[in-house]
Amino acid sequence: MIKINPERFLDDLKKQGKIGWKEGEGLYRESYTDSYYEARDFIKKKMEEAGLKTRIDAVGNLFGRLEGKNRDAGTILSGSHLDAVPAGGILDGALGVIAALEAARTINESGTTLRHSLEVVAFAAEEGGPLGGTFGSRVFAGQVGTLPSREALEKVGLKEKDIEAARMDTKLYNAYLELHIEQGPVLWRNGLSVGIPTAIVGITRYLCTVKGVANHAGTTPMEDRKDALYDAVVIMHKWLDHMRHQHGIVCNIGVVEVCPGHPAIIPGKVMFTVEIRSDKHEKIKEAEVKLEEALSLIEYCDAVKELSVKKAPVELSKVVIAVIENVCGVLGVEAINIPSWASHDASPIAKEIPTGMIFVPSINGISHQKDEATDEKDLINGANVLANAILKCDNFGI
Amino acid sequence: MIKINPERFLDDLKKQGKIGWKEGEGLYRESYTDSYYEARDFIKKKMEEAGLKTRIDAVGNLFGRLEGKNRDAGTILSGSHLDAVPAGGILDGALGVIAALEAARTINESGTTLRHSLEVVAFAAEEGGPLGGTFGSRVFAGQVGTLPSREALEKVGLKEKDIEAARMDTKLYNAYLELHIEQGPVLWRNGLSVGIPTAIVGITRYLCTVKGVANHAGTTPMEDRKDALYDAVVIMHKWLDHMRHQHGIVCNIGVVEVCPGHPAIIPGKVMFTVEIRSDKHEKIKEAEVKLEEALSLIEYCDAVKELSVKKAPVELSKVVIAVIENVCGVLGVEAINIPSWASHDASPIAKEIPTGMIFVPSINGISHQKDEATDEKDLINGANVLANAILKCDNFGI
Repeated sequence: MIKINPERFLDDLKKQGKIGWKEGEGLYRESYTDSYYEARDFIKKKMEEAGLKTRIDAVGNLFGRLEGKNRDAGTILSGSHLDAVPAGGILDGALGVIAALEAARTINESGTTLRHSLEVVAFAAEEGGPLGGTFGSRVFAGQVGTLPSREALEKVGLKEKDIEAARMDTKLYNAYLELHIEQGPVLWRNGLSVGIPTAIVGITRYLCTVKGVANHAGTTPMEDRKDALYDAVVIMHKWLDHMRHQHGIVCNIGVVEVCPGHPAIIPGKVMFTVEIRSDKHEKIKEAEVKLEEALSLIEYCDAVKELSVKKAPVELSKVVIAVIENVCGVLGVEAINIPSWASHDASPIAKEIPTGMIFVPSINGISHQKDEATDEKDLINGANVLANAILKCDNFGI
Repeated sequence: MIKINPERFLDDLKKQGKIGWKEGEGLYRESYTDSYYEARDFIKKKMEEAGLKTRIDAVGNLFGRLEGKNRDAGTILSGSHLDAVPAGGILDGALGVIAALEAARTINESGTTLRHSLEVVAFAAEEGGPLGGTFGSRVFAGQVGTLPSREALEKVGLKEKDIEAARMDTKLYNAYLELHIEQGPVLWRNGLSVGIPTAIVGITRYLCTVKGVANHAGTTPMEDRKDALYDAVVIMHKWLDHMRHQHGIVCNIGVVEVCPGHPAIIPGKVMFTVEIRSDKHEKIKEAEVKLEEALSLIEYCDAVKELSVKKAPVELSKVVIAVIENVCGVLGVEAINIPSWASHDASPIAKEIPTGMIFVPSINGISHQKDEATDEKDLINGANVLANAILKCDNFGI
């Protein structure tokens, strides 16, 4: 068992958290902005100081490589992303990058040479935007799907050919490990230092449209109205009322658009987004059936749903999970298995490379804002679990 | 009894309907635009051809005056407005102006000289916008209330002093008569040519705000959420469900804003407008109490309502209504009393001058769009009722 240098690790974490920080507002470090590049330079320099060989791929992902004894043994990858949501926190992403860097430094300093090579990665553009979420890791893993528009790429200085150029042969990688804050309240509430995700939930989104007839809100008798808002409200109420009592699944209606949107005009059209997240296919199916039922309930208007996002749940590697569980046991860190309710760089990568994640508690379950924080002891525990899990993967010959 | 010239009347109505008309879209004749001024010039010329003395006041209201025998007897006013909602129809407003013009022409041609003077009026800016609805008639009647912003006035070439300059001494007027399309389906459905409004409904508007906590829609457990949309939906459903079964009152929720408005973020704030219209104070009060009840029902968030509009119902003149009813009887035109569910230039004027309205049917109840139409026989009946009601007001010495 190795132990990371907690002072150095926390110091780096704090220093990177100042890059793009606006007092009272939070972290402004969206991908491909000045503050983002500044943070990437900071990490690159730290990697080089630690003796890692750095490279930046065509879409901006940063790698720091520690060459292993056995060139044929393949590579263990660990990291996360450096970009943040606007007015975000300092841990979402950066924690996983700096903990992986600290693991590499600790291993290097211990005099051990790994059989496998170890790569620390700082992915670009995880937090969404015009390129779509987990962009850097999707490019890396060859999981881009539909290409972003040329305009969206050009805006950040990229070309279509960069996507192909940055794609890696994932067969060269044996495992991916990512340390991340939980972003929910489960670990914090239960006083646990570590959570070990078994799966990353699938995300299903529908755009629902209710079509009625816009009309004068004074002169149209109530019994003559085809009020799209009334029927939309019936649907949303029925569905949310059912869903809020389910377990193992969460859902959200986050966007509602009412047309034409005037106090004195009966809404002729209402559109709203429905989001469903679960790690269980059958739970997602059930929610979809209930939504269809709610849509068919309405009396006055027509309602349709259109699928806009369908990301299947991603199972994480049972082997890597077992490695992490074992390490927690040896280190005496109490851990539980939970699903990851948010998407991560691990999502696209897990489809190609055996992947495991380590969660640490978010104080009060808060993330994506300035108050995002984790107790220092939990940060250190998480980094130690990661470093030893990397070691164990190396020994284990995964 | 006099009879208007139906060909001339319908011909003028059609000609004005071409000014600002876009084929397949409807009428674009918002106040103080080029097409609006073109329509006003058209009417002004027609007034002058008919021997009326024209003037345009400081805010753009157009008057055409036929001097009466008795200078002390006061003036009978009749007309409506010439502006239209964007992509509107050709009757809303213009019908009342052209029918009043036709009445003046017919009276003039009949060789009768009225005891009272008769003024035909084409009010400006009835259809709302930055100046507020019924702007021209509110200015005329000294009912402006809070002044529009200097910017809003300057945008249409007006100054604050123009508002005072255009205010008339309403004591010089004995009656105001306005012919208008019903804009609802009641007359059309019942096969009646004429409706006689007894009152113009009051309009009450609230801005309701539901405050919850915005949070990650994946990582926040369902039982931890303070979802402002869920509670807003409960309120809207409860209230609309009650209101749609009431009589003598209509209501609408026409605007809904969800913040921050992202599929993956639990709404932290939802705002929506509530509109209530009735000619009965007690019905409005009851709807307000029910809204308050619905707001207090919610479990997870805070909800408040803020009054934004409070226009009391306006009673129309019992004397003028009796005159119109009498004229309908003599002409053999079957008529019913109905409330006016929309606001009109008659609303501010009725507070100062004895006022009556005459409604003609809207085919299928449609208004404020290109298909707004009325059968020619109903248009002619309406114009004849107006012309004779003006004559009767003159005889009656109202």
